[in-house]
Amino acid sequence: MLVNVTKDSLVNALQHVLKAISVNSPMPILAGINIQANANGLIFTASNTSMTIQYRIPQDNSSMTVQRTGGIVVPARYFNEIIRKLNAGLVTFEMNENLILTITSENSQIRLCGMDSADFPSIHFSDHHSSNKIQINNALLKSAIKQVAIAASTSETRPVLTGVSFEFNGASLNLVATDGIRLASRTLHIGKSANTSTNVIIPGRNLFEVHKMLSDEDDITEIEVGTNQIRFITNELQVQSALIEGVYPSIQNVIPQSYLSEVTVETSSLLHAVERVAILAGESIIRLVATTHKLDLLSRTAEIGDVQDEVPLTEMIGEDFIISLNGKFFIDILRCMDNEYVRLRFTGKASPIVILPADARLSTLFLITPVRTHN
Amino acid sequence: MLVNVTKDSLVNALQHVLKAISVNSPMPILAGINIQANANGLIFTASNTSMTIQYRIPQDNSSMTVQRTGGIVVPARYFNEIIRKLNAGLVTFEMNENLILTITSENSQIRLCGMDSADFPSIHFSDHHSSNKIQINNALLKSAIKQVAIAASTSETRPVLTGVSFEFNGASLNLVATDGIRLASRTLHIGKSANTSTNVIIPGRNLFEVHKMLSDEDDITEIEVGTNQIRFITNELQVQSALIEGVYPSIQNVIPQSYLSEVTVETSSLLHAVERVAILAGESIIRLVATTHKLDLLSRTAEIGDVQDEVPLTEMIGEDFIISLNGKFFIDILRCMDNEYVRLRFTGKASPIVILPADARLSTLFLITPVRTHN
Repeated sequence: MLVNVTKDSLVNALQHVLKAISVNSPMPILAGINIQANANGLIFTASNTSMTIQYRIPQDNSSMTVQRTGGIVVPARYFNEIIRKLNAGLVTFEMNENLILTITSENSQIRLCGMDSADFPSIHFSDHHSSNKIQINNALLKSAIKQVAIAASTSETRPVLTGVSFEFNGASLNLVATDGIRLASRTLHIGKSANTSTNVIIPGRNLFEVHKMLSDEDDITEIEVGTNQIRFITNELQVQSALIEGVYPSIQNVIPQSYLSEVTVETSSLLHAVERVAILAGESIIRLVATTHKLDLLSRTAEIGDVQDEVPLTEMIGEDFIISLNGKFFIDILRCMDNEYVRLRFTGKASPIVILPADARLSTLFLITPVRTHN
Repeated sequence: MLVNVTKDSLVNALQHVLKAISVNSPMPILAGINIQANANGLIFTASNTSMTIQYRIPQDNSSMTVQRTGGIVVPARYFNEIIRKLNAGLVTFEMNENLILTITSENSQIRLCGMDSADFPSIHFSDHHSSNKIQINNALLKSAIKQVAIAASTSETRPVLTGVSFEFNGASLNLVATDGIRLASRTLHIGKSANTSTNVIIPGRNLFEVHKMLSDEDDITEIEVGTNQIRFITNELQVQSALIEGVYPSIQNVIPQSYLSEVTVETSSLLHAVERVAILAGESIIRLVATTHKLDLLSRTAEIGDVQDEVPLTEMIGEDFIISLNGKFFIDILRCMDNEYVRLRFTGKASPIVILPADARLSTLFLITPVRTHN
């Protein structure tokens, strides 16, 4: 291997692939980054057992040139620290001796012991040809993942609930996540439909990393679904995630079809009020009291104090209501609402409260199961 | 108590005093902030057993008005979170019921249970009248603390070494710290001299907090030395620190009075080279090799790799030399050098290397004891 590449390109590539490095991997080679220099460019791959990230620096005449092809796996932590500390400008990678990468930049020369690339797990699908492919705008996918993945469970008690359900259905993609107390769902309309309808469960944590990497919002991501893998491809970045085996619970009967009252409030005012009330919310429980013109928010922590806050209502349909719910869950939802106004639908004291963007064209829907209180 | 005060003033005051809050204080009242509203203003005080910080918001007609005096100690963590989450603008503090502070801002009302101010430790000196006072420019004090405090020990084996020695001597103030391997010292010339010469040892950690709080560099800090306390006063801020009992070791015989070689190099080039070399420095040991025109830097970590770097010399006096030392300690020193060029004085293979700013008018001096190596 003999490659010239700018420090900036390297830093950018590393930022992406490092997300897949786990510090305590059972396989030593997975603490490394696989570097391949070939006709396609300079390709960096990192993987934990659940997610593989690949980033390619294409060959051009200024920021990267491959003079001699080759490959090596280098320890991610040391490699990253070294690249970051180099002076700006051109860096040379050379592999002459067996499995030693020599990194040269100005007066600095680093020799890093590596491992054989052949031992690094491959990112490729085994069932590449039979897979479904759809294309989706990055901004849309990013926003949908951000909204839905927050409701995925962090407890391993029911593994399917740690995932986000992706249901490809003709020209639409439905995303759903729930941890049993809260639920988030969103439907995206996709231009070109997948051939068959498919339902897969993607680990919420991996999806959250994908959402952070979708930097260019005007771009397109191609999603490719295999039997036990899903792949996201945008520009020079590819992220492959394992799928969670199992059947995702049906949410048809969980979402209330009617409601007793609906209030509309400004999202940011409500968010700030909930954030204040949550500070003194014992066991995270806050109480909402909706009357004709205002929504009162209340909390207390024994021996510390209490908070009262109020938000004016833009609109109210139906009767006054009182409901207690988890304030942290409510904050998570309001923070990713992406709409200036929000609607709260009261469906009964023991049924979930439905939280929606006020703009009826948006398909986002959140539920929180209320907390039963004694007063 | 009845006070009107802007959120911004409160956030600023809290930023300062929170540094003295320790999460696991043995005295519950020290998890609180003492708030006093009186003719002097609105005064916030926080303390751990070693350091007390007081910040005063003076009374004016816009950002703060005391309508009724009073005092209360409120839980720091909750109080801080609440103030930060309030909307911008005027906040009202009212204490009607016994030991409950009512905080009102727009539609938000928070009632916070407090403790009796009378139980809060006082910041005042017992020996106020007999204390020595000196005045010093903030930028100068900030830079001196930053340079010297890095060399204080973090191990409690010899408590005096966890402190920084402040020696007031006529018109000068000498700061010294050492952990046995490295040493930092600086002499500041102060306009008005203290009446008597005094030598005190201030906990390095407290001094480091003081340095971070000296924000306005054109301002003056008054330092007041008591029998077992020292106080730093600048504008509306007062920081009082306990002194460490004991006698600071004499450094007269530690600082080499002559040298065999001296090299001058650009500080930032050397810093960046040492940062790169330190990445692969096993047990943090890096090797310096000075020859006529360049300083070579070398390190290796078994089974990982090695680094070679070089920095051109601006000047060299004396013979070539080779020395091994702790790269982390060297980085700490170079980062706070505050001079474009740095001089390294080689005083022998087993004697400390002396590191100085190239500008001979600066009184800063660092030492690092070399590491003995077998090759």
